[in-house]
Amino acid sequence: MANELKEITSRDVDFAKWYTDVVKKADLVDYSQVKGSMVIRPYGYAIWENMQKILDQEFKKTNHENVQMPMFIPESLLNVEKEHVEGFAPEVAWVTHGGNDKLEERMCVRPTSEVLFCEHFKRIIKSYRDLPLLYNQWCTIVRWEKTTRPFLRSREILWQEGHTMHATSEEAKEETLRMLKVYEDFQRNVLALPVIVGKKTDKEKFAGAEASYTLEAMMYDGVALQNGTTHYFGNGFAKAFGIEYLDKENKMVTPYQTSWGVTTRMIGAIIMTHGDDNGLVLPPNIAPYKAIVIPIGKDENVLAQANAIKDKLIAKDISTKIDLTDKTPGYKFAEAEVKGYPIRIEVGPRDLANGLVTLVRRDTLEKMQVKLEDINSEVDKLLVDIQQNLYDRALKRRDSMIYEANNYEEFTDIALHKSGFIKVNWCGDVACENKIKDDFGIKSRCLIENEEVTGPCVCCGREAKHRIYFGRQY
Amino acid sequence: MANELKEITSRDVDFAKWYTDVVKKADLVDYSQVKGSMVIRPYGYAIWENMQKILDQEFKKTNHENVQMPMFIPESLLNVEKEHVEGFAPEVAWVTHGGNDKLEERMCVRPTSEVLFCEHFKRIIKSYRDLPLLYNQWCTIVRWEKTTRPFLRSREILWQEGHTMHATSEEAKEETLRMLKVYEDFQRNVLALPVIVGKKTDKEKFAGAEASYTLEAMMYDGVALQNGTTHYFGNGFAKAFGIEYLDKENKMVTPYQTSWGVTTRMIGAIIMTHGDDNGLVLPPNIAPYKAIVIPIGKDENVLAQANAIKDKLIAKDISTKIDLTDKTPGYKFAEAEVKGYPIRIEVGPRDLANGLVTLVRRDTLEKMQVKLEDINSEVDKLLVDIQQNLYDRALKRRDSMIYEANNYEEFTDIALHKSGFIKVNWCGDVACENKIKDDFGIKSRCLIENEEVTGPCVCCGREAKHRIYFGRQY
Repeated sequence: MANELKEITSRDVDFAKWYTDVVKKADLVDYSQVKGSMVIRPYGYAIWENMQKILDQEFKKTNHENVQMPMFIPESLLNVEKEHVEGFAPEVAWVTHGGNDKLEERMCVRPTSEVLFCEHFKRIIKSYRDLPLLYNQWCTIVRWEKTTRPFLRSREILWQEGHTMHATSEEAKEETLRMLKVYEDFQRNVLALPVIVGKKTDKEKFAGAEASYTLEAMMYDGVALQNGTTHYFGNGFAKAFGIEYLDKENKMVTPYQTSWGVTTRMIGAIIMTHGDDNGLVLPPNIAPYKAIVIPIGKDENVLAQANAIKDKLIAKDISTKIDLTDKTPGYKFAEAEVKGYPIRIEVGPRDLANGLVTLVRRDTLEKMQVKLEDINSEVDKLLVDIQQNLYDRALKRRDSMIYEANNYEEFTDIALHKSGFIKVNWCGDVACENKIKDDFGIKSRCLIENEEVTGPCVCCGREAKHRIYFGRQY
Repeated sequence: MANELKEITSRDVDFAKWYTDVVKKADLVDYSQVKGSMVIRPYGYAIWENMQKILDQEFKKTNHENVQMPMFIPESLLNVEKEHVEGFAPEVAWVTHGGNDKLEERMCVRPTSEVLFCEHFKRIIKSYRDLPLLYNQWCTIVRWEKTTRPFLRSREILWQEGHTMHATSEEAKEETLRMLKVYEDFQRNVLALPVIVGKKTDKEKFAGAEASYTLEAMMYDGVALQNGTTHYFGNGFAKAFGIEYLDKENKMVTPYQTSWGVTTRMIGAIIMTHGDDNGLVLPPNIAPYKAIVIPIGKDENVLAQANAIKDKLIAKDISTKIDLTDKTPGYKFAEAEVKGYPIRIEVGPRDLANGLVTLVRRDTLEKMQVKLEDINSEVDKLLVDIQQNLYDRALKRRDSMIYEANNYEEFTDIALHKSGFIKVNWCGDVACENKIKDDFGIKSRCLIENEEVTGPCVCCGREAKHRIYFGRQY
């Protein structure tokens, strides 16, 4: 049985196959008969619940309130903002009938909710006293993707979407960057993802936004995963919807807007950043269980001590599971590895006779014996260490897969032979972005704000305006 | 301005208008341009978040795990269980197109998820070791209602749905009653609703269930609100889906199933049970804020003391809001009443000079002066008292609106002249249920398990088998 669990394709042999093996064998998802949708199983959903809990606290600390908008958008409402409808109409699911009756106007399932929030904002924003309006929504959205993969690209996406309205463009811009920072801190400190954060090019920004910011995570195979975005809208939507308020000088003016979102895709980023050939590896700060206790044998004292260890850890707020099934220790060890519990605690008669238990850290699979009485402090220390090690390891790998190209020949060579991000100088012209995409299927990731241009545009050789990352993406 | 807030239709003049006034003026919902859907505003959503938090803890205590199923059901999947599809097909929303492409098979947005869970269960249940399987899902469902009212009947419903599988019918029946009890305790102790709990008749049970149980709340106007249900399915769905497992004797057998759910409708029940002509009245145990502090005047000492009171209560885990807007005290008092905060704390210079503050309880509008230093204990005591008083008041009213009818003449008289529940003897024949529905538009609510039959059937005069409640419903 342990072998069956271990049948995970090696990451270096077939990364795509490795990924689907891990999501299945770690019991994160089940494929459904409903094409393009997945079942998120209890262990996968528990990770999402932890993400929701931590982020929701951050949103509330920054004064955001949760609301719930309708799930359907009438076609005429989607059509109000021109760029937005062009961006989304090709990928929405259309509801045309209610029961046996054809609808007078068809409606799509929300692919995102800007127009629904605007329609509501128009009714409730009347005075400067109503601003800023800081809303968030946890919900499911639908985008009719042709090819799908669990967590990375699916027709149904669990996410949160923040939507805010402000009196001035400065305040709205600050909000856009504030929430970007909230995401960045969460992804670095909780998910152990060394994300690269920056502004999207005009070509890659959100349909209808003036500026979009992104968090770009690099997966084990060097491919980028866009892991969250924040958008500054200026007052384009507000004007299209006729949202106006009475300012302090008693004039009717138009407010400024932002939106921002992250999704269950973050679970995919964790899997493809930290996982290994034995399965999932979860950062302690997001793991549903930080430790699993495995008693070896059926000796009464072993079982009593194993249960006591679990209770001691839980009493210290360290969520801990105990495996009391009748499987063999070997199977239990393999399962604990596949599921990525940060620490495995082996409780056996020989160790116990010496007042010891064995800890196995999931990130390195290193074993260590610790004194039974020190279990809480040792686990605590180890969890901190694992969290840091996962981040450091991912950062080191990411940095080793960032390449610089000074001209198109160098770019071509890297694009054809390496996987990772390519850092270049760029003139700012979309034509160069398009050429790179046409030649190699590679898109721009984000501008690098804090670096000076070092030479001419990598593509056209004209004067460069920006440093920028390019890279393939999920 | 206070007058504008106060413009709530009297409950006794037009209850339906009163209801819509309250949901709007208490900022619970906004009507949306999307027909049949509503916007749940921050204050309304905070009530739902509290409900979710408390119930989710209860579900986890009883070993249920949260999962997420697809949102769409292909038509062929909905068709697997015959009674179920007949019950739901007339009221589902059909998705026929993804982007510009017509789907090969249309899909409905889930009106409930039995078939989706069954499709998943078929793949994951293999052995008796996999049972019981105790799942819950928090999500939105869609039922294409023709006439809608906020919280009571809408096209989109926020709810939770539990779905469980068991080795024996006894275990499944126990689960059905266990979760009914969880709902009953929650609604009585947290929502202060004196619900009547019992079994539905065959005519009124859930499409595909062997037995359905209901929690029937009686609203201020005597009309019933079905406020949650639990269902025992036997193994009908499991057989239709071919779900089988290897039991301890190594035989393939079919498991037994339950489902159970409550919705945002519970918010409607709170409004229509406890609310009054001044607006919403929230039971302390579910209120987003248990108290609101209103400083009177702009005296620095008043503001400092008001803030100190708020901090002191929050430190004791009593969620408290302070109103620091530049509105008049009169407006603030009216707003606090409309929004139904259980306790209003008025902090004024005259009271403070005597070391006092004024508490106003929302349920009775009674005012009392308490010593500043006793604020925490006084608020604590008052919250317990308000919670109990709301329950007692609702129970007394409910009992005063339950009528007994011994024959059809008495039934007719009550049905035509009274509002409330009618308690009768019933032969068990659906023909009598249908006659009562046809004659008066009144349906059966639930069987009364713990009462002996007292005479012949109220409708046909034949021998009665059950005591049962009838009543009009929302």
